[in-house]
Amino acid sequence: MFHIRKLESSDYHRQYINLLKQLSPSSNIDVTFSDFIHQFNHIQKNNINIYVIEHENKIIASATLIIEHKFIHNCKNVGHIEDVVVDKMYRGNRLAQRLVEFMIDYSRKHNCYKIILNCSEDYKKFYEKFEFEEKNIQMAIYF
Amino acid sequence: MFHIRKLESSDYHRQYINLLKQLSPSSNIDVTFSDFIHQFNHIQKNNINIYVIEHENKIIASATLIIEHKFIHNCKNVGHIEDVVVDKMYRGNRLAQRLVEFMIDYSRKHNCYKIILNCSEDYKKFYEKFEFEEKNIQMAIYF
Repeated sequence: MFHIRKLESSDYHRQYINLLKQLSPSSNIDVTFSDFIHQFNHIQKNNINIYVIEHENKIIASATLIIEHKFIHNCKNVGHIEDVVVDKMYRGNRLAQRLVEFMIDYSRKHNCYKIILNCSEDYKKFYEKFEFEEKNIQMAIYF
Repeated sequence: MFHIRKLESSDYHRQYINLLKQLSPSSNIDVTFSDFIHQFNHIQKNNINIYVIEHENKIIASATLIIEHKFIHNCKNVGHIEDVVVDKMYRGNRLAQRLVEFMIDYSRKHNCYKIILNCSEDYKKFYEKFEFEEKNIQMAIYF
């Protein structure tokens, strides 16, 4: 019923931006269709894979997987998970779990030696279910 | 004297792989020129920016900056720093500091709202000098 597919440019019209607002409610997000297409084209070119779940012509879940090509570990890759979000009306259906499992499987099949993500302590238990383990600290500068 | 430039395919012949071995001495890294070129081409295509410092026909420092295009924060980007390494014979010359400053500056100029990295507790103080702050935890699965 809930099928995972790649983000399409027409998803702008399926309330995709409204879904993303639930990621960081305090952040500004006021994206015109032309802004969206501009950034969508960069994303397409750069191995940034955005997966979504659609239901009744609305995008109700999304997650991003960046594949980073490295020379270390005999030229293997690293999967980076970013921006996992499920519409608040659809939580409790294990959609985040399905997206994360999909991305772990994709990374395993695409020559990755590891898959990583950053999260707050609140989400640690959720990711431990997939056998993620705490590894390092994330440092950030906000401009 | 120590000029920062992008990685070139000919850097394979400037002991670049030997430098990367110092990143994780325990990991396997046995890369033929053909493997290198294959992965180099992916890196070129995918907005993975590898910066290096050359001295006397040898690559003595390297760091990677991935630019991730997002829709949140009004279609801004995120800079991800990876794999900062300086040849052990050249440490103490502030080369890592120059590379990190270069990548912060690049991210600021390329529409990023933040720059992030993952490191162990041992390197926290080093990154705090640039005004990085501890933000989240990094979780990982090794395949």
